[in-house]
This record gives sequence, structure tokens and C-alpha cells, in this order.
Amino acid sequence: MGGAGADIAEAYELDSKDELAPFRDRFVTDGDVVAYLDGNSLGRLPRSTARRLNHLVEQEWGRGLIRSWQTWTDLPVQVGDHLGGTVLGAAPGQTVIADSTTVNLFKVVDAAAGMRPQRRELVIDQPNFPTDRYVVEAVAAARGMEVRWVPPDPAGGVTPGSLAPHLGPATAAVVLSHVDYRTGYLADMAALNSLISDHGALAVWDLSHSAGSVPIRLDDDGADFAVGCTYKYLNAGPGAPAFLYAARRHHADARQPIPGWFGADDIFAMGPHYQPGEGGRRMLSGTPAVMGVAAVAEGVALVAEAGIDRIRAKGIALTELARRLARQWLEPLGWRFASPTDPARRGSHVVLAGERAQAVAARMIAAGAIPDFRRPDLVRIGLSPLTTSFVELWKGMEIMLQAARETAS
Amino acid sequence: MGGAGADIAEAYELDSKDELAPFRDRFVTDGDVVAYLDGNSLGRLPRSTARRLNHLVEQEWGRGLIRSWQTWTDLPVQVGDHLGGTVLGAAPGQTVIADSTTVNLFKVVDAAAGMRPQRRELVIDQPNFPTDRYVVEAVAAARGMEVRWVPPDPAGGVTPGSLAPHLGPATAAVVLSHVDYRTGYLADMAALNSLISDHGALAVWDLSHSAGSVPIRLDDDGADFAVGCTYKYLNAGPGAPAFLYAARRHHADARQPIPGWFGADDIFAMGPHYQPGEGGRRMLSGTPAVMGVAAVAEGVALVAEAGIDRIRAKGIALTELARRLARQWLEPLGWRFASPTDPARRGSHVVLAGERAQAVAARMIAAGAIPDFRRPDLVRIGLSPLTTSFVELWKGMEIMLQAARETAS
Repeated sequence: MGGAGADIAEAYELDSKDELAPFRDRFVTDGDVVAYLDGNSLGRLPRSTARRLNHLVEQEWGRGLIRSWQTWTDLPVQVGDHLGGTVLGAAPGQTVIADSTTVNLFKVVDAAAGMRPQRRELVIDQPNFPTDRYVVEAVAAARGMEVRWVPPDPAGGVTPGSLAPHLGPATAAVVLSHVDYRTGYLADMAALNSLISDHGALAVWDLSHSAGSVPIRLDDDGADFAVGCTYKYLNAGPGAPAFLYAARRHHADARQPIPGWFGADDIFAMGPHYQPGEGGRRMLSGTPAVMGVAAVAEGVALVAEAGIDRIRAKGIALTELARRLARQWLEPLGWRFASPTDPARRGSHVVLAGERAQAVAARMIAAGAIPDFRRPDLVRIGLSPLTTSFVELWKGMEIMLQAARETAS
Repeated sequence: MGGAGADIAEAYELDSKDELAPFRDRFVTDGDVVAYLDGNSLGRLPRSTARRLNHLVEQEWGRGLIRSWQTWTDLPVQVGDHLGGTVLGAAPGQTVIADSTTVNLFKVVDAAAGMRPQRRELVIDQPNFPTDRYVVEAVAAARGMEVRWVPPDPAGGVTPGSLAPHLGPATAAVVLSHVDYRTGYLADMAALNSLISDHGALAVWDLSHSAGSVPIRLDDDGADFAVGCTYKYLNAGPGAPAFLYAARRHHADARQPIPGWFGADDIFAMGPHYQPGEGGRRMLSGTPAVMGVAAVAEGVALVAEAGIDRIRAKGIALTELARRLARQWLEPLGWRFASPTDPARRGSHVVLAGERAQAVAARMIAAGAIPDFRRPDLVRIGLSPLTTSFVELWKGMEIMLQAARETAS
């Protein structure tokens, strides 16, 4: 195999100079996969997580039994603060690990809507992730509000220019994805928060495809609420609990729609009525998924150790290489690079659009290169800077080239 | 040590005749604990669960990566059906494993309230678990409804007689715990469902302290909705996901308040609007906690293998022994047996009320017997039929006797 005018030696050279290359050994990478290009659907297993989960199950649960809650109880807040400080740009007391992204999104969208009771519109872009749209529609329906849909922007995601016409005195809140799950478009959070705030509305961010891959400054950029997954670039495992950020300035006014014993001020007081806990803890509901929260702690520790700026630099280098190989190898076969060409407006994945995308993805998987297929015509290439090597990407793109050739009529 | 007029040889004799005794070896029981009397806060670790979680992490996640979702995707429904069929008395297609008990309770209480839009009252008993009360208050506040509080009944839980005066044409739904988390009172589900249904209202059950310890017949007894924990008598580990039952006759009318991609008809269609999935799947929201659901599967399998009738018989034998020892040893010291004396109205835990309960519980824990202290004056003795032996209970009660003597002034 191999593509015209390109030599894999270049990828080996890039790996040899990569400061983050040693992090790959901190993850389980043996097995039958030649190129894992879906770390943004499910990140790889950190070796430290396997050890910690084994200890948690065998020792903390198996032998410590109920006594281990002494160390488990504060984990959602402790790990939330660690994630906030190292990945989200959030001061302590605003971030917790809890529930699923869907449930957390419901909590913060409902809370935001409740903070603007005279305003009757929730705004979201049509191409946003299904859960985000479903939750916005459900909250709007429950509260007798309207959904204002922002049409797709040719940029690949929501820009101040595409959003502005849909904001007004009726806007209660705007729900946006920081990185679009299909195109990889990286929204300008500071500019959008400023625009939304100018209209007196609240900004709710879904950081699922940016947390752990691009720098985020929730506090400095004026975000109101945010949620996101931990099983993508934070490598916390299948269905690990999500995170929730609520800016401290809103704690007094934001009503938590699912108050539970774990979010109460004194969880063992069990008094007659709900008294919200201190800081972000009030956004918790039920008993936390301890195994999942521990896995988040390990994933966050690895990202924190590597540093988000180095992760971002490698992410750009990876997506730039993917773009160049796509141009050299796949565009001649009729494929289109459907992500932003400006790396400053691109997260850590790219998509390639082609007529036989589904068949190509299936052939790639059979050959050991795992991308993500997105209907109707997208092959998504996820590049996780802590675990994806340049050689791995190169080999994966070679396999895609071969698959594209084989499926071309 | 030892109590007057009782000999531990009796407990050894009971263990030797116990058909379920071999199940204790299916759990991790080594360690420093002499008597674990809190399996209804956190059940013990099944050995099969430790093995399965290790395989899930190392092989399915670590090496299978995203491909393992082919087997994980249906787990919440498959395990829900297994739990429904073997423990809850629920035909397939009505039970799922998801989220926390708090979140599930929010979903079903909100759904029930929405099915009776002209009725303005939600009914719950004052002594119910905090989360249940908080959720009912929150749903009522969000919908402009009233909460009607049922005062404590001397029986130790809600009876048809104590509930009836609080039902009427304004009652939308009633939220009840099947087994009271403090007294252990076992409610008469069939009679209460019948009473509630006669008033045109809906019955929502919290089965946290009954699932896996007493027979439950949700379908036959006419329950409308139910939720519950899996980390108590189902032994699924700290913060394992909860279960949710929605009777099939309500699927068409019950609106799911947190619609997410995992509850949609075709989770990868990602179409413009939410289309609810088949059966109970529509009650799912976000990505399931895979490790937790797998642990539930193992815990359910053990309960199913033992059979709920044998579990119930041993549970009664254990609570009867606890009652007898309490009467012989602790009542003379001023303690009171504060659970129902009729085993037919009692779950698988008992509580003893005493002035120095907190100090006694602390001394017990220091001496290797772990009960649960409940404010202000209760020592709760949880008896988990699959793992608690009669000798273990006996030793635990001896330690309590010693602690009660030492703290008596």
C-alpha cells in the first residue's frame, strides 16, 4: 500500500519528536487494532484505571464494604474540582461528576429556563447532537416555551453571525456544542458568550467533544452552564458519569430540577425539606456511580499531567496530517474534507465525506482501522492526542485509501 | 460474652440446615468484619462480579474498544427484563437499568403527574426516604401542584387505613416505599394499588429496600410505576445504576421528561425529532453506565438462582432470630424493637431504638460488627439472606449487647 508522494517515514519522524509519545504506553494498546480512530467515541483504557478499578472492587467494596463511603462520598466534588481546574478553566466549587450528559443537560437547561421566566424561547442549532435537541425540545414543551432553531452554518458550526439573528428579548437560553460532533467545528466560546449575554440570555455548553482535547476557559470566557462526556478524550470508560458546571454567580438563583439526597446540605440529616448543598454539590441528585467517578479521576489525572496546551498542539498536528493525506490520497477519488480547514476552528477530529462512506468504514474496520461512520456519508477520524500516534494515523489513512479504492466503481 | 438463656450452638444449627448457606461462598467474605449487618446499604461483592468487571475493563473496553458496544447497547433492557422476570414480577419490555434511583423517580413521578393534568395533588408519607420527598416536592413545585403529606402510621409504614383519608379526586399520584428504610415495614402493595386505582390515581413504588429480599408482583398487583436501588439486596456495588419499571399500559401516555439518544427508537438515526423506543427502552436517557449494568446482571443472576421464595423464608428466619435476641438481651437494657413484630409485614431488616444508639453503633463498628445508625436513635440491622449467616447475626447481636452494656450509664 501507500499513497502517492508520501512516505510513512515522515510519520515515524513526527512520533520520534512527539513529547506526548510516552503517554501512549500509559494505555492498553495491545490487541488486534492497527489504527484506533474512534477515541472520541470511546477513549482507550488507561493502565492506571484498570489498576484502580481492580483495587476499588476487590478492596474498597469487597473488604471495606460500607465503610468505604467515607472516601467515596466527596469524590464527585473532588474529581469535579480537579477536572475544572485542569481541563475546564473553572475555579473550585462549580463542577461535579454525576449522571449522564443527557441528565446533566436536562438539569442545566431547565435551571437556565427557570432563571428567565419571562422569556419564552430556547435556542439551539439544527445540527446539534440528538440528545441536546431532544432535551431542549422536552424542556420547552414542559414549560410552554418555543424552540428557535439555528440553521446549519457553512462554517460547520454556530458562529456569532449565524446565531445573532435568532437572539432577542424572548431568548432565555442558548444550547451550543463547543466542538460539533460531526464537522469538528470549534465554536468561539468567548465571542458567543458575549453575544448571548448582551441579549440577557444564558449560555449552556456541551463540551463532550472538546473536554480534554482543546483549551477551555469557562470562568474567563463567561460561560453560564456546561456539561460533557468523560468517556471520549478523558478516557473514563463506557458510560462513565458526565460532568456538570454551574457558574458560581448562578448558584443562588438556579433551581435544581432533580433534588436528591446526595445534593443536600447534610446528606445524613434527612430533614423534612431539601436544603441545597454548598457550591456545585447542589447539582448532584442520587448516589454517585463510584466506579465511574474513580475512572474519571484517573482519566483527568493523565490529561492534567500531559497538559492541555501540549495536547492541543499535538491535536492540531494530527488533524493537519489527516487533512494533508486526505487531500493527497482521497480527494482524487472523489472524497471531500468536510471539517474546517483552519486548525484554530477545528477540534481533534475530522470528517471525510464520500458516497460509499458506510462501505468504506466497514472495510476499514475489517482491516483493523476503526473510524466512526456517521449517516449519511461521513467517515469520522478521531485523533486522541494522548493515545493516537502519527504512524497509527498514517496506517489508518492508508487503510482508508485502500478501502476507498476497492469500493470505487 | 454471650447473652442469658441463649447459646450460639443454635445459630450453627440453623446455618447447617440453611439451603442458601452455600451462596455465602459466592461472595467475598474475608477481611476484618465479624458481622456485616449493613448489606441493605451496600451489599457484598459477588465473586462473579469481580471476574466480570475485570473482563469488561481489560478485554471488552481495553481491547474490544468501541466494537464492544455491539454487546453493551442492549444490556439495560436485557438486564432489566431479567430483573423484572425473576425479582419484580414484571413481564418483559417494562423494566430497564438506568441512572440513579433519584433520577428514575423524577422521571416516573413527572410522567405520572403529566398523565393526570387536571389533578393537583401528589401524595407521599412524611417518613419516606429524603430523595423521594425531595423529588415529589420538586415535581409539585415545577407543575404548580400541592404535596399532600401522609403522617406517620404507628404500624411503621403506610397502610390502606392511613392513606385513604388523603386520597380524593385531586390525587394525581401516590409515591410509596415498599419497605420503609427505617422501620422495615412491608407495605401491602396489592391493597394499596387497589385503593389508589379506585381513586383514579397512579401508584409509584420505591422498591429499594424490597427488591431482592421479598417477593414482588408488580404486574399482578397492578403497580403503575416503580424504581429502586441495585446496590442493596441485589449486590451490584457502590452507586450501581438503578431500575425503572413502567407498566406497559402506560407506555403510550407517559411522557418521558428527559428524552435522550439512548431512549430513541433508532439510536443512530439521529433524526430531527425524538421518537421513543420500543417498550421500556423509551425510559432510558443517556449512555448507560456499562460497568454498573454488568454488575447488576451478576447480582440479579445470583438472586434468580437462589429464588426469591427461599430468600424470603431465610429473611424471615433471620429477622425472627434478631427479634428474639433483641428481646432477650437488649430490651432489659432499655432498648426497643421498633420494627413490625408480624414477619408478614416486615422486610429483611429490623431497627432497635435506644438512647445511646450512635455511641453503640460506633462501638459495634470498632468491634467488627457493622450496623447502620439512623438519626436520632436507631440501630438498623440489615440481614441479607444470600450473605448473612445465622452465626454472623448472632455474633453481631452479641457485640451489640456488649456495646449497649458498656455505654449504659
